[in-house]
Amino acid sequence: MGCYLRTVECVSMTSPSLEWGVRAPLRAVPAAVNDRLTRYFAHATSEFEEIGPEFTQAVSFLREFTLLGGKRVRPMFAWAGVRAGLEGGSGSLSFSVSDATPNRAAEALLTAITALEFIQACALIHDDIIDMSDTRRGNATTHRRFEHTHRDNGWTGCSDHYGKSQAILTGDLALAWADDMLHASGVGAQALQRIRAPWRAMRTEVIAGQILDVAMEANGSESVEDSLKVIEYKTASYTVARPLHLGASLVGAKQDVVESLRAIGQDIGEVFQLRDDQLGVFGDPAVTGKPSGDDLRTGKRTALINIALRDGSPSETSMLRQGLGHVREDHDIDALREVITSTGAFDKVEAMIDQRSSRAIDAIKHAQLGTEITEELIVLTQQLNNRKF
Amino acid sequence: MGCYLRTVECVSMTSPSLEWGVRAPLRAVPAAVNDRLTRYFAHATSEFEEIGPEFTQAVSFLREFTLLGGKRVRPMFAWAGVRAGLEGGSGSLSFSVSDATPNRAAEALLTAITALEFIQACALIHDDIIDMSDTRRGNATTHRRFEHTHRDNGWTGCSDHYGKSQAILTGDLALAWADDMLHASGVGAQALQRIRAPWRAMRTEVIAGQILDVAMEANGSESVEDSLKVIEYKTASYTVARPLHLGASLVGAKQDVVESLRAIGQDIGEVFQLRDDQLGVFGDPAVTGKPSGDDLRTGKRTALINIALRDGSPSETSMLRQGLGHVREDHDIDALREVITSTGAFDKVEAMIDQRSSRAIDAIKHAQLGTEITEELIVLTQQLNNRKF
Repeated sequence: MGCYLRTVECVSMTSPSLEWGVRAPLRAVPAAVNDRLTRYFAHATSEFEEIGPEFTQAVSFLREFTLLGGKRVRPMFAWAGVRAGLEGGSGSLSFSVSDATPNRAAEALLTAITALEFIQACALIHDDIIDMSDTRRGNATTHRRFEHTHRDNGWTGCSDHYGKSQAILTGDLALAWADDMLHASGVGAQALQRIRAPWRAMRTEVIAGQILDVAMEANGSESVEDSLKVIEYKTASYTVARPLHLGASLVGAKQDVVESLRAIGQDIGEVFQLRDDQLGVFGDPAVTGKPSGDDLRTGKRTALINIALRDGSPSETSMLRQGLGHVREDHDIDALREVITSTGAFDKVEAMIDQRSSRAIDAIKHAQLGTEITEELIVLTQQLNNRKF
Repeated sequence: MGCYLRTVECVSMTSPSLEWGVRAPLRAVPAAVNDRLTRYFAHATSEFEEIGPEFTQAVSFLREFTLLGGKRVRPMFAWAGVRAGLEGGSGSLSFSVSDATPNRAAEALLTAITALEFIQACALIHDDIIDMSDTRRGNATTHRRFEHTHRDNGWTGCSDHYGKSQAILTGDLALAWADDMLHASGVGAQALQRIRAPWRAMRTEVIAGQILDVAMEANGSESVEDSLKVIEYKTASYTVARPLHLGASLVGAKQDVVESLRAIGQDIGEVFQLRDDQLGVFGDPAVTGKPSGDDLRTGKRTALINIALRDGSPSETSMLRQGLGHVREDHDIDALREVITSTGAFDKVEAMIDQRSSRAIDAIKHAQLGTEITEELIVLTQQLNNRKF
C-alpha cells in the first residue's frame, strides 16, 4: 500500500486515514476503495442504529459482503477515466469540485467512484438469489446467511424463503446507498449533472443485461448474437465502458476523449468477458477459484459455447447438447473441452480477444493522454487479457 | 380533472399536456403524477429500445404496474410539503429552481415528487415476491406475469423462479429510475443538496421497515412495541413524514416548519396504518378491495392483533392464537372479530387513532401556514382517518 502514497501531490498528514491524490495509480484503487467503504459503513451503522437489531444485522451482512473481496474493477476503470480526463483529456479538478484543494477534490472523486461498489453489491446479492448460489468469494451468499439465521433461531416459516426475502431487501439497500454515496461525495453540482447520463445508463444497462441473461437461459437461446449482447450490456458497458465514461465526465473531459474511452472500454470489457468464457471451460480451479469446467457443469450458453454449437459438425453439436449441464465425472469435462476445441470455437474466441485487445491498446496509445495513464491503462488491459488457464 | 386548472397561476397553453401550477391542490396530484409517469415511460421506452425485446417487456410490465393504480399518497404529501413551504413556511420557488418561471419551477417540483412512485413500485414489486402474492390491484403481480410468460412459452427451468428473478430485477430498475427521475427533474442543485437527508432516510427507512416486518413475521414477535416500530418506519415515516419533509425541503422551508411537518406526518402516518390494521380485520371487502378479515386469514401480527394478544384474558389469547392464520369458514372470522373486540383492542386502537388525529389536526392549525394548505391538509388527514369499514 505505502509506495503509491509518495506519488501523491500535497499530502497532508492531518487526515487519520490514507490520503488520496489526483495522481494515485490505478493499482492503488482497491485498497483505497476498501478504506472508504469501511468508513462509510462505520458512519451508516451508527446513523441507523436506533432502528433495531434486525436492521443492524442486515447492514452488517451487507458490510461484510462488500468488504470481503472483489477486484474493484469498476472503481479502477472509473479512476482511469478521471486520470485520463485530467492527463490529456482537457478535464480539470475544478470542473469536479470547485473551491477545494487538489487533495480534497481527489478525495471527493474517490468517494464518488467507490459508490460503484454498492451497485455491484446489489447486482451480486440479487444475482446469487437468481442463480441459487450457495457461496460467493468462499463465503455463504447473503441469502444463505439470512437463511442460517432463520434456521439457527428455529423461527417459523420457510428458512429458504426468509433468506431470499431479506437478501432482496439488503440488495435494495445497497442500490439506494450507491446513489447516496455518490451524491454525498463532495463532487460539485455541475459534475453530478454531467454524470447523470452514464450513471443512469450504467445502472439500467447492468439490470437490462441481467434480464437478457435470465431470459436467454430460460428460452435456451443458442444465438451467438444474443450472448454477445449480454456481454455488451452486462459486462462491457457496466464494468468498463461506463466507469471510464463516468470518471472522465466527473472531471469534465472533452467529448471526443469521452467517446474514445467508451469505445476502448467496450473492447476491454469484451476481452474480459470472452476470456472469462474461456476460463469457465478451460480454467484451472486453483487460479479461477471456481470448480473446474464450471460453465460445462451448469450448461450456461456463453458466447464460446454458442459459437461451438453454431460451428460444430452435427455430431459435435449433438455431443455438446447432451453433455452440457450433465457432467458426471471429470472425464466428461475433458471430452467436452476437446469437442469445443475441435469445433474451432476456442480459437475463434481467442481471435476475437486478440482483435479487441489490440484495437483497445492501439486506441489507448493514440488517445493523446499523458504517458502515465496511457501506460497504466495498457498494463490493466493486458492483465485482464492475460489471466491464466 | 379540469377544475383545479383554474386555480393555477399563469397557465400557458403552449404545453401539449396538463399544465401544473404552484397552487395546484392536493387532490389534483394523482392525475398529474399519472401523466408525468406516462411521459417518463414513453421517453424511457424509446431510450432503451435497442437493448432488445426481453428488456422492453420488463419496462412495459413496470409501466403497467406503475400506472395501474395507487392512490399516489406519497407524492400527495410531498406536494403538501411544497405548498406548506411556499404558503407560510418561508420557502420560495427560487430556492428550488432558479431562473425559471413559476410554472416551470412547479413542473420541476412535480417531476421530483413523482419519482416517489418509482420507490413505491420497487417496494411493492419486491414485497409481492416476499409475501408470495398472486394479485395486486386486481391484476397478476409482476413476478406472476413473468412466470406466465415463461410458462406460456414453454421455456426450460422453473417458471416460478423465473418470475421471481425477473421481478427482482424489474424492482431494481424502478429503484434506480427513482433517483434518475428526481435528479433529472429540473430542480436546482441546492435543492437537491437539501433533500439528500430525507431522500436517503426515506429509502433506508422503508427498506428497514420491511426488514423488521419480515423478521417479526419469522420470529413470531407479538410485541406491541415491535409492531409500532414497523408502523413508524414502514408506513408513517416513509408514506407521510418523509414526503412532507422532502417537499418542504425542496422549496427551502425554514427548519421549524420542516420539523413540525415531520411530527404531523408521523401522526398522520400512524393514523393511516392503525386504521388499516382495523380494516384488515373488520373492513368491508367491497370498500377495502381485500378479502374479508384478510389479516385474520394470514395471521399477520399487526399492532391491533398484538394489543389483543397482550390485553386479552388467557382464554381469549388462546382462542386468538388458535384461530389466527387458520381461518376455514366465515364464522371463524366473526368469532375472531368478537374476541378482538372483547379484549378491548379495537377501542384502544380507536383511541390511539383519535389521539394522533387530533394532535395532527391541532398541529396543522397552529403551524401558521396559509389558509388553503391548512384546510387541504386537514381534509386529507380526515379522509385517511375516515376510511369506512
